[in-house]
Amino acid sequence: MELLKQRILRDGKSLSEGVLKVDSFINHQLDCQLLMCIGVEFARRFAYTRATKILTIEASGIAPAVMAGYCMGIPVIYAKKAQPCTMPDALHSHVHSFTKNKDYDIVVSREYIKPTDRVLCIDDFLAYGSAANALIDIVEQAQATIVGMGFVIEKVFQHGYDTLRNKGFQIESLARIEELSDGKIKFCD
Amino acid sequence: MELLKQRILRDGKSLSEGVLKVDSFINHQLDCQLLMCIGVEFARRFAYTRATKILTIEASGIAPAVMAGYCMGIPVIYAKKAQPCTMPDALHSHVHSFTKNKDYDIVVSREYIKPTDRVLCIDDFLAYGSAANALIDIVEQAQATIVGMGFVIEKVFQHGYDTLRNKGFQIESLARIEELSDGKIKFCD
Repeated sequence: MELLKQRILRDGKSLSEGVLKVDSFINHQLDCQLLMCIGVEFARRFAYTRATKILTIEASGIAPAVMAGYCMGIPVIYAKKAQPCTMPDALHSHVHSFTKNKDYDIVVSREYIKPTDRVLCIDDFLAYGSAANALIDIVEQAQATIVGMGFVIEKVFQHGYDTLRNKGFQIESLARIEELSDGKIKFCD
Repeated sequence: MELLKQRILRDGKSLSEGVLKVDSFINHQLDCQLLMCIGVEFARRFAYTRATKILTIEASGIAPAVMAGYCMGIPVIYAKKAQPCTMPDALHSHVHSFTKNKDYDIVVSREYIKPTDRVLCIDDFLAYGSAANALIDIVEQAQATIVGMGFVIEKVFQHGYDTLRNKGFQIESLARIEELSDGKIKFCD
């Protein structure tokens, strides 16, 4: 997605140890117009999946997921990082964040993913694939079908894609980064 | 906002101790079409404030804020509940959640709110006003101007509004609830 790549080159910051800071437009301050374009692009790429629900993780996945959900006309469910007292029957999974170097659980109410659902998972980053695999775990526990996974930015050099391929669903990343170094950002292709 | 009130009556659940569960359409599973209508309504009500930024709190404020930001053509900043290592210069404030009976800090990068900014604060609920007052605190620390506060649902009987009135900015709640009891939901007016 050319608009996104140009924006990453302009406003993204390549920090040490493979961290890309995009908090001026993607995950702290949000450019809502860009996020709608991202939602449109996800809707276009996943148009033929017949998805019935989008699943993402709070907090940074919510904005791109909700724009995609709006464009596709389907609800979004966001996995929470703590189980509210008002959620009696929850599906749990586990994420290790390499960026933050910590572990956390995610929970989704069993009420909102049914075995008949066709689920599209969306997140802001695909890095090592830990969050993505936790989402897959949740959908499998609900005995629903995953029809696709969409990421705003993929850090190809962290190989999360390799943990997802061969699972039979469509995987799309809107900006694929091959290398982050010395303040430089290099895209694939 | 009639569409929202009808939806709350249909799908909201009035639990004990003044808790309204709306996690099937507002803050776990999200009805993206309804959220866009909420964004349009905020944009309409705050059209004359000349707001330059929207400020909200992760995670449940993000979806309504991002729809409002899209409709108003301005960026959204969401306060985080933990300070990322990539955010060196942060504004801090403190929230007490009565629903969850716990305290937490919120952080916003100083980079994204400037003294020239006119800030509209948006959140999903106005209850006792603790989160709203933390947002005001952040904006005041940044020496910016608050031009309005918008809430999707106000629980009038918890009196958060009384902590915000007389501050000179516009306050709007899209659904104002007078009473929650015995599974019943009663709106003001």
